[in-house]
Amino acid sequence: MSVQHNRDPRYDILFEPVKIGPVTTKNRFYQVPHCNGLGYARPKSLAAMRGMKAEGGWGAICTEEVEIHPSSEISPYIEGRLWDHRDIPAHRLMTDAVHAHGALAGVELVHNGFHAPNRTSRLPPMAPSAMPVDAYDPVHARAMDLTDIRNLRKWYRTAAINARDAGYDIVYVYAGHCMTTLMHFMLSRFNHRSDHYGGSIENRVRLTREILEDVKDAVGDQCGIAFRFAVDELLGKEGMSSDGEAQDVVGMLAELPDLWDVNISGWSQDSSTARFEPIEGYQEKYTAFVKSMTTKPVVGVGRFTSADAMVSQIKRGVLDLIGAARPSIADPFLPNKIFEGRIDEIRECIGCNICVSGDNLCVPIRCTQNPTMGEEWRRNWHPEKIAPKVSEDAVLVVGSGPSGLECALQLANRGYQVTLAEAGTELGGRSTKESQLPGLASYARVRDYRTNLLQQKNNVEIYLDSELDETAILEFGFQHIFLATGSHWRKDGTGRHHHQPIPGLETIPTFTPDDLIAGQAPKGRVVIFDDDHYYMGGVLAEKLLAAGHSVSLVTPAVKVSAWTEFTLEQERIQAKLLNLGIEIITSQAVSAIKNGELELSCTYTGKTKYIAANALVLVTARNANDDLYQTLKSSPENLDAAGIKTLEVIGDAYSPGSLASAVYYGHLAARCFEGESWDAALFEGERPGLVS
Amino acid sequence: MSVQHNRDPRYDILFEPVKIGPVTTKNRFYQVPHCNGLGYARPKSLAAMRGMKAEGGWGAICTEEVEIHPSSEISPYIEGRLWDHRDIPAHRLMTDAVHAHGALAGVELVHNGFHAPNRTSRLPPMAPSAMPVDAYDPVHARAMDLTDIRNLRKWYRTAAINARDAGYDIVYVYAGHCMTTLMHFMLSRFNHRSDHYGGSIENRVRLTREILEDVKDAVGDQCGIAFRFAVDELLGKEGMSSDGEAQDVVGMLAELPDLWDVNISGWSQDSSTARFEPIEGYQEKYTAFVKSMTTKPVVGVGRFTSADAMVSQIKRGVLDLIGAARPSIADPFLPNKIFEGRIDEIRECIGCNICVSGDNLCVPIRCTQNPTMGEEWRRNWHPEKIAPKVSEDAVLVVGSGPSGLECALQLANRGYQVTLAEAGTELGGRSTKESQLPGLASYARVRDYRTNLLQQKNNVEIYLDSELDETAILEFGFQHIFLATGSHWRKDGTGRHHHQPIPGLETIPTFTPDDLIAGQAPKGRVVIFDDDHYYMGGVLAEKLLAAGHSVSLVTPAVKVSAWTEFTLEQERIQAKLLNLGIEIITSQAVSAIKNGELELSCTYTGKTKYIAANALVLVTARNANDDLYQTLKSSPENLDAAGIKTLEVIGDAYSPGSLASAVYYGHLAARCFEGESWDAALFEGERPGLVS
Repeated sequence: MSVQHNRDPRYDILFEPVKIGPVTTKNRFYQVPHCNGLGYARPKSLAAMRGMKAEGGWGAICTEEVEIHPSSEISPYIEGRLWDHRDIPAHRLMTDAVHAHGALAGVELVHNGFHAPNRTSRLPPMAPSAMPVDAYDPVHARAMDLTDIRNLRKWYRTAAINARDAGYDIVYVYAGHCMTTLMHFMLSRFNHRSDHYGGSIENRVRLTREILEDVKDAVGDQCGIAFRFAVDELLGKEGMSSDGEAQDVVGMLAELPDLWDVNISGWSQDSSTARFEPIEGYQEKYTAFVKSMTTKPVVGVGRFTSADAMVSQIKRGVLDLIGAARPSIADPFLPNKIFEGRIDEIRECIGCNICVSGDNLCVPIRCTQNPTMGEEWRRNWHPEKIAPKVSEDAVLVVGSGPSGLECALQLANRGYQVTLAEAGTELGGRSTKESQLPGLASYARVRDYRTNLLQQKNNVEIYLDSELDETAILEFGFQHIFLATGSHWRKDGTGRHHHQPIPGLETIPTFTPDDLIAGQAPKGRVVIFDDDHYYMGGVLAEKLLAAGHSVSLVTPAVKVSAWTEFTLEQERIQAKLLNLGIEIITSQAVSAIKNGELELSCTYTGKTKYIAANALVLVTARNANDDLYQTLKSSPENLDAAGIKTLEVIGDAYSPGSLASAVYYGHLAARCFEGESWDAALFEGERPGLVS
Repeated sequence: MSVQHNRDPRYDILFEPVKIGPVTTKNRFYQVPHCNGLGYARPKSLAAMRGMKAEGGWGAICTEEVEIHPSSEISPYIEGRLWDHRDIPAHRLMTDAVHAHGALAGVELVHNGFHAPNRTSRLPPMAPSAMPVDAYDPVHARAMDLTDIRNLRKWYRTAAINARDAGYDIVYVYAGHCMTTLMHFMLSRFNHRSDHYGGSIENRVRLTREILEDVKDAVGDQCGIAFRFAVDELLGKEGMSSDGEAQDVVGMLAELPDLWDVNISGWSQDSSTARFEPIEGYQEKYTAFVKSMTTKPVVGVGRFTSADAMVSQIKRGVLDLIGAARPSIADPFLPNKIFEGRIDEIRECIGCNICVSGDNLCVPIRCTQNPTMGEEWRRNWHPEKIAPKVSEDAVLVVGSGPSGLECALQLANRGYQVTLAEAGTELGGRSTKESQLPGLASYARVRDYRTNLLQQKNNVEIYLDSELDETAILEFGFQHIFLATGSHWRKDGTGRHHHQPIPGLETIPTFTPDDLIAGQAPKGRVVIFDDDHYYMGGVLAEKLLAAGHSVSLVTPAVKVSAWTEFTLEQERIQAKLLNLGIEIITSQAVSAIKNGELELSCTYTGKTKYIAANALVLVTARNANDDLYQTLKSSPENLDAAGIKTLEVIGDAYSPGSLASAVYYGHLAARCFEGESWDAALFEGERPGLVS
């Protein structure tokens, strides 16, 4: 498809080709390796997802980490596998999908060392020196001897050849996080060897150098050789540091790879959420030195979604290629939108890391902003295309939160005449409200992307300040009604821990997140009872502390905001709250209010103790705002009489969940509208082959 | 194969057939449903594992829980799936394998309700009443309306028909744990409905009754209909109770199913480890009432490995069928061994639940006692058969711990002449030593099974009190040496948290687990620093407390014995230690000893504090005892001169790990001896089909 573009010429630089050894990218948009929960288990889904990014204009598309041998497998996490030639056909699906759109395909070959407990292969893990694996499994890695080192070099070489034969254009040697054998060798805290692979930095880099040379020798005539390297662990002199040994490493290996892919480590720093790194380009201060030490192209990341920021990176000589994982997930068509002068249509990553939760939970990737992510094969969804309408019926969407906005947008994209009614005075529902909380400003992007597009459409009418009741809806004359009326937080303490209201709540001022967001202010010492376990409890603790309160957070979980371990935030949240002076009380539930005090019960023993509080904030569970739905549904005869053909409740009003699920339900409802059922696409799936 | 048996006639009763509706088991050995981490993802491995139990004599072999619809999928956990007819071919592998040996195949159909966050299907979960899912995911289940209930009944019926078509003889309706929609409906704490599915126990049982009737109507002419029901949650009147509502449930449904499969809930109570339930038959006090209320056969579990205990259950009218999951994992041939009068050859389950860790970690099942478990297809291992020797060479095994014993036994089974040398005065290594610790008595079964068989073999010589050095080994004249010399605990504090020794250790009496097992006694107040995270830290806390010490346990983890969450023990361990009065300090590391006090550092913030202690026990990491190996290996010319063809180090001496891995390495080494390499079998694997 040829599109007449209207691009600002200052963005032209982003579309210059870049040579990577023997191959050349068509532009500077480079999808760096990222995990996704599809991997070796769902090769068709994976190929469709990667291919979609190629279609969207990315010049290079890389795999997730791809294991080169069963002595390094991090099951149950679902990464790539290229253990031997039998894995080539699955990879070929991906490279073909990527090549079909003129992009380069890159493969990130990895050996995970003591990061791999080898739960499935049951082979003893390996490390530069003997040590326990970094998970809590009762497994120790053994120190690699020279035979092991020779084997590792051989496996890397073989995997590189298999990768080339699978169609990859770029082959990685991976030391980009502290999860890789090569990084383990480089770090003096893990490498206690006394042979010529230990001691000096030259010795600790030796294995990396050898493998880079091996891979280059094996496939360097046809493939670009990339080296992914974390230049800073943010541990000061205790670790790899951009003003310390990283300079030595880059200096020693400067011209050896065809491409430097540089980042920071650990993963939670590299893929930092917007809550902790709100500004794009946040890795520049660590990675900027690399370009001055090599003539080879350099790619780096920083959650880039702004074309201006990207241009700045190139022009200022920080990077040659704009690396992106999350921005390419939120918008696979980001490059094409810049190319075509449609930068206002970019669906910007909100930095929430719900995408990462897929990999961490060993299930397929999802995205708050892009509900089609991970669904390209299974549901045959395209982020920029949707089936046209099948009738001339008019649709009313009630509620302009994430689900209502997405549903209205996609119905409008299908060509339906859509009316969106919002009870309040602003659009966005919870994405607007939560964006006012500490660290969550980027959540407004969920609203902004959709309202911008909706407001440009001539088949959409938006009404604010329009609370609708049963009578109004029955009188309007729409044939189809979608109710996206959201949810509210419970005020009785019920949720996961309590199935009955907490006794005595009437004796203490209690607040929900809704109350605090609406501006209600507790007085004095506040205790938060967090039985929700995602971000809300911790965020409110920050808000209340900033408002001058003494704050304690009580949770039945063993840690604060426990589910955020899957978004790489938990340790940072707990550290931040502790450093701010917020008291954290884990493995306890608020079980009653007695004599003005809170009774806490130990989740292990049931033993009780008492703490003082002037106010209690309950962050436990939510109830759907589905009264309107239940009322309408209970009188099908009224619906018939009003000419209403379908009535659906979507988003949090159907089933309270994450921002991502609200958007997803809105999208799903629009896709399935006047079409197939919600679950029809799920039964096919990817199944193990049964022929032996 | 017809075997002349020498069975005690009092066991004959175990080999009587039992009628289950329209089908009949050949005997009373009944493998109840159990998870295994193979499931839908590895159907060939699963079929081989189940088929092995049929070959071993079990009269009925059941699946794990099998999901009937994507609205109830508990990914990433790998259970069975029978979402629709497309899943039948995979199940057919299992039923064929089971039928090949004359056993019945049973399928446990499940809908998981709010236990299923539906991380992959992304469908909103369902429950009797709206509530958050029981995981910490930001997902709420919605209350099922009457359409949902009709759908659930339809799904169950369809799944039952598909199950019959897949060849199953027994079809389950599953309410055996608090993880099932049917149990959720039955429990008043989750069911707050006001329609005729809520309120009275009759109403709460209604859905179960309807589904039992539906399934019976659909396939009851050809299949036995089993009802798996947890009669007690051990929550008193707060939950299902064998002296409360469970009696009502059994009374109401008494004759409806063809088989009652009764147990207790939660899973950690049902599959209790030997540490918490050392005696077989521990569920009898809860389940015994059921037989008095129904004429239908009853199956129950209790980690039965003793034929006498089984006979007692039948004769006393407690059970009709001896249910077993773990005993059938530890010894798939348990029934045949009883049948053939070889009860001393039964490989008894030690109740460690390492099997369960596979399911909980979403990886294939393993077993401490039976190293072939889960390897039936992948490595083509048979628990009772092994390839014969390929040479007349003599083998020396040094060390009689779990790895040495297993290696020696399997080499002897292959027909090699084996000499086993033990440095100490008793056999068993760590299985003997650890069995003396609180709660771990059953670990001695690892030793007992193997020594009993070894001592009967005429191609095995065992020497105690025979510590061997390099000179002795070189002089002996064996062609092959296996070194199973074990491991020892580090005494410097290094492990996962510390990569350098803890400063100041020389200023306080320090002990390792080895020291305490060897009888060394600290004085005064003891602090345990547990950076191991499996059972040892908690077990030593119990031992020290029993010896009269004041005990604190400090761990960098967020909970005690954190890895035991995968063996279903963590909550029970932490509750027990707290109730005993042991102080638990989480998220802290012992970072130094200063002025006679222990410095603790917060793992989140690094902030330090100080506590008093008279002694420090370091449970951090282990070092392989591989000095002998390294010495011998460093002089290949000496090995050649001595006629030594192969030298291998196995078990903890190779890579310190669990008891299970020690046995596994010993087995693997014996299998691979004079054969293929350790990793050769791993590359085939089970892969997704690529043809769409």
